[in-house]
Amino acid sequence: MSIVLGPNQYGKAEVRLVRVDRDTARHRITDLSVTSQLRGDFRATHESGDNAGVIATDTQKNTVNAFARDGVGSPETFLLRLARHFLQSPQITGGRWLAEQYGWERITAGGEGHDHAFVRGAAERRTALVHADDAGLTVLAGLRDVTVLKSTGSEFSGFPRDRYTTLPEVDDRILATDVSAWWRYEPSFTETAGPAEYDERYGAVRSILLETFADLHSLALQQTVYAMGKAVLEAFDDIAEIRLSCPNNHHFLVDLEPFGLDNPGEVFFAADRPYGLIEAAVQRSGAPTAEHPVWSTIGGFV
Amino acid sequence: MSIVLGPNQYGKAEVRLVRVDRDTARHRITDLSVTSQLRGDFRATHESGDNAGVIATDTQKNTVNAFARDGVGSPETFLLRLARHFLQSPQITGGRWLAEQYGWERITAGGEGHDHAFVRGAAERRTALVHADDAGLTVLAGLRDVTVLKSTGSEFSGFPRDRYTTLPEVDDRILATDVSAWWRYEPSFTETAGPAEYDERYGAVRSILLETFADLHSLALQQTVYAMGKAVLEAFDDIAEIRLSCPNNHHFLVDLEPFGLDNPGEVFFAADRPYGLIEAAVQRSGAPTAEHPVWSTIGGFV
Amino acid sequence: MSIVLGPNQYGKAEVRLVRVDRDTARHRITDLSVTSQLRGDFRATHESGDNAGVIATDTQKNTVNAFARDGVGSPETFLLRLARHFLQSPQITGGRWLAEQYGWERITAGGEGHDHAFVRGAAERRTALVHADDAGLTVLAGLRDVTVLKSTGSEFSGFPRDRYTTLPEVDDRILATDVSAWWRYEPSFTETAGPAEYDERYGAVRSILLETFADLHSLALQQTVYAMGKAVLEAFDDIAEIRLSCPNNHHFLVDLEPFGLDNPGEVFFAADRPYGLIEAAVQRSGAPTAEHPVWSTIGGFV
Amino acid sequence: MSIVLGPNQYGKAEVRLVRVDRDTARHRITDLSVTSQLRGDFRATHESGDNAGVIATDTQKNTVNAFARDGVGSPETFLLRLARHFLQSPQITGGRWLAEQYGWERITAGGEGHDHAFVRGAAERRTALVHADDAGLTVLAGLRDVTVLKSTGSEFSGFPRDRYTTLPEVDDRILATDVSAWWRYEPSFTETAGPAEYDERYGAVRSILLETFADLHSLALQQTVYAMGKAVLEAFDDIAEIRLSCPNNHHFLVDLEPFGLDNPGEVFFAADRPYGLIEAAVQRSGAPTAEHPVWSTIGGFV
Repeated sequence: MSIVLGPNQYGKAEVRLVRVDRDTARHRITDLSVTSQLRGDFRATHESGDNAGVIATDTQKNTVNAFARDGVGSPETFLLRLARHFLQSPQITGGRWLAEQYGWERITAGGEGHDHAFVRGAAERRTALVHADDAGLTVLAGLRDVTVLKSTGSEFSGFPRDRYTTLPEVDDRILATDVSAWWRYEPSFTETAGPAEYDERYGAVRSILLETFADLHSLALQQTVYAMGKAVLEAFDDIAEIRLSCPNNHHFLVDLEPFGLDNPGEVFFAADRPYGLIEAAVQRSGAPTAEHPVWSTIGGFV
Repeated sequence: MSIVLGPNQYGKAEVRLVRVDRDTARHRITDLSVTSQLRGDFRATHESGDNAGVIATDTQKNTVNAFARDGVGSPETFLLRLARHFLQSPQITGGRWLAEQYGWERITAGGEGHDHAFVRGAAERRTALVHADDAGLTVLAGLRDVTVLKSTGSEFSGFPRDRYTTLPEVDDRILATDVSAWWRYEPSFTETAGPAEYDERYGAVRSILLETFADLHSLALQQTVYAMGKAVLEAFDDIAEIRLSCPNNHHFLVDLEPFGLDNPGEVFFAADRPYGLIEAAVQRSGAPTAEHPVWSTIGGFV
Repeated sequence: MSIVLGPNQYGKAEVRLVRVDRDTARHRITDLSVTSQLRGDFRATHESGDNAGVIATDTQKNTVNAFARDGVGSPETFLLRLARHFLQSPQITGGRWLAEQYGWERITAGGEGHDHAFVRGAAERRTALVHADDAGLTVLAGLRDVTVLKSTGSEFSGFPRDRYTTLPEVDDRILATDVSAWWRYEPSFTETAGPAEYDERYGAVRSILLETFADLHSLALQQTVYAMGKAVLEAFDDIAEIRLSCPNNHHFLVDLEPFGLDNPGEVFFAADRPYGLIEAAVQRSGAPTAEHPVWSTIGGFV
Repeated sequence: MSIVLGPNQYGKAEVRLVRVDRDTARHRITDLSVTSQLRGDFRATHESGDNAGVIATDTQKNTVNAFARDGVGSPETFLLRLARHFLQSPQITGGRWLAEQYGWERITAGGEGHDHAFVRGAAERRTALVHADDAGLTVLAGLRDVTVLKSTGSEFSGFPRDRYTTLPEVDDRILATDVSAWWRYEPSFTETAGPAEYDERYGAVRSILLETFADLHSLALQQTVYAMGKAVLEAFDDIAEIRLSCPNNHHFLVDLEPFGLDNPGEVFFAADRPYGLIEAAVQRSGAPTAEHPVWSTIGGFV
């Protein structure tokens, strides 16, 4: 057996692009971290340093910036433009383009949202990914680190007890997590959607995820995670599947008894590590059984 | 000359306290990181490991948790309770209590804010500090990492040019910073203020800082920083002074000319490092000239 | 089509375990972050919150701690013990166990390594992963964030130039990266290896990676990455494949000409973002063409 | 009372400078993060945006890079050169220059340290600070985040017990901390020291700190901290004082009794937060009682 190059990709990561739309005095800003990764037959550069086919990562960065001159639109459509551009090069047979978007809100001044002054919103980020292979383009949308907490409406019991089990059963606890999710759009959506449709859909999915988290009386974080994904698929036929990764951010009830005090669910210690980690895909039953190739580029679970 | 112990303090840092107020079905949560640091004559423990006077840092943590059983109120009043408690011990002659508060908002479900489900707000934090020494208690309030950006209304020119100057003058740029500030309350405020007054004042100061950032046409970040502080002092006589520390989060206009494109203030690169750093105190002219001792416990500038 | 649960896993992440071996006065410490993730048929907990089969993540944490009582050995063998334990539960059909190990060195005191005092070594971490599915157990070993830099012996030229290319060709540059790698052991190795063999092999692979980085005159980071992987496979027949992920930590030569100075490769600016990102697998040509299922649990590339 | 500008400073932070010394084939690299902050009468820029006296922070960055063309030497001497340069401007009456240095070691290749390939060492950093005011220049040297751990030789008992005390007394525990320290050199040292003397002294102080941590049987972290500082002052008359800030990185003995196991100091949980925090200055008894003004620019304690 000889030694050979296996799967590979290369590109530029975390291009920090801020786009100001200033066609009117009421500016809009789009704040993105964009990653571009290309695939193709790159044996020559790996084996001998022959870079004749290697679109420099610096060129990829320049392309991101130059394309932003025409506006960004939604992150999904911006990545699709990048993908189609790079795929015109004959040596590029696939790739992966990723964006994370930071949220900004208008500063309130004189009782109104200011025209050109903004304050950064929550730490959560909107995400988008375009994947290209021989089968074509796939679009994922998602979100990261949407930190949520329920102060009641969560219990955990009925789990098996073995030699190593010490956890008591509880019928009321804090449930807290940082929701990260990716959902895959069907071609029926991506073939027609423009920036407005992607933005609107993103907002709708985010609302469903949060509302489901809030409303479901939870017997296990697994149940909440599955319900969140299921609600999204139920709402939108053109979302093929969704994957969620949710840490269980433990909040431990502090034992105040040594101080002569009770603690009826009021004083908690928010722990850093370790944490639970619940990950699940929610799919449609008639779907192909083989995993969509985009998921192997996300990593994380299963 | 012999070698001696100089200034010293010890305590427990970053006690992660989450307090749920659940007297009605509409819960409220207070999410704090609390630090307690004590001062006194601790030569014995330093010189020989005699801990007879050392209130264990674990005890300090327990005290934080136990006091939360009665409710937190505002971070300032919670720290004042802790300070007064520890100062009852004869060996404790001073200290420093610090809190950082994380913001949460109600999740919208069914069109309304949910009773007991919350989503984490902006990464910014509200801060509070109580300092105790022979002269008594001092209360600072503040905020950290309030990230703001103006997409126009900022210029920078007229600076001196020497051998090492290459920066061009600009009459329109992005101005962006992470505002961190501490303001010191006069005793006239702290002697009567309860949690509601501290909360209301915090909100009012934050609004003034943001509104001033938004409204001032800026010729230098220094001018903006000073104006922000000045506006706070003008609004509230019982704030003695304010200190601000503001990085200049550079957004560089990308040169698109090599690609045959202009760039009329639309495409920017958000740089990480290095960054400018502007720090200033704004005070009242008739105030004592000696620096208030609390500032040496903050560090950072001057 | 109805909506169904797809792939899923759950567990406890980042159990921070420090094990002191103190059978003699010359202590040894093992400092690990351990993650345990279980798979099986968990439809009941997802669909209805029935936890009858759910080994609590807290129980998983307890098991990690309890198993450490018998010693850790190497991270790989420790994870194998955990895997075999959890797989005894009939509902557990697979899983993923991960460890990151922090390095410690003895403090030099009196000219010798101290018996029980240690100082933390480099930020890099040794990693290990055990993956279980129907086909059995697979062992990966790896390392993360081994930051390396060459101050010469690296060039980059011959790449295509298009409308968006501005990068000049260079025949001498700084090449710097944070090496992350995972290699997969053949059963021929894992069937017999004990802790000593895993430790020795880890050290040997790390040395080969670093030595190859140092010695190869690099025409592209891709060439260096491939050579590093190839050297490992050449040295050890019982390593089936290796994957590397290497950012290009750009060091830009500062233009000192405006100051009347030349800069013959001496003064550089170390940029944070964006950065290049080079990822490749190195394999054996006669190997099965289908990707080993373990890689979909790593994520990151292809 | 009118509102006035108080203390202020401005500059460029975290200039990431990598200097390659390549006068022979055996290269040396110096990897620094440099911050330059200037003080003077800057009322005009704060009050009206008049920048006539404001040496742009970009110019400060350029100066750092240009000065590196002549070599860096030690961080202390490099900062002194910067300080003296900026103080030549009549409007600059003081300032603060800070450097953090990252460690690199030669990669071993062919059994020897490679000429131009390096691997990043421990996460700890060497630090230096030059402070200028009317009284002249002051030089501090220091280190940050030197993470150390003793697996025995530490106890904690004899502390007072009150209503909120639950901590048991222990006669054997893990003691772990991240040592951060600043020491102030006397003019007798700085007037004659060159880069070699600063480098040598840094190494000697670091060794004393570590060796004292290792050798002292500790009854309290305070005792260890004080002993570390005292040993430095005893060794070097030309160090005027030293300040240390040391978190107590708690390692909790895991209770294995529920699993039928003992735990004789072998299995520990390394906690993240909260942590103890011990801070102390060690001084000479005959020294001036007023605090040296440099310390108010460091912040952190007292």
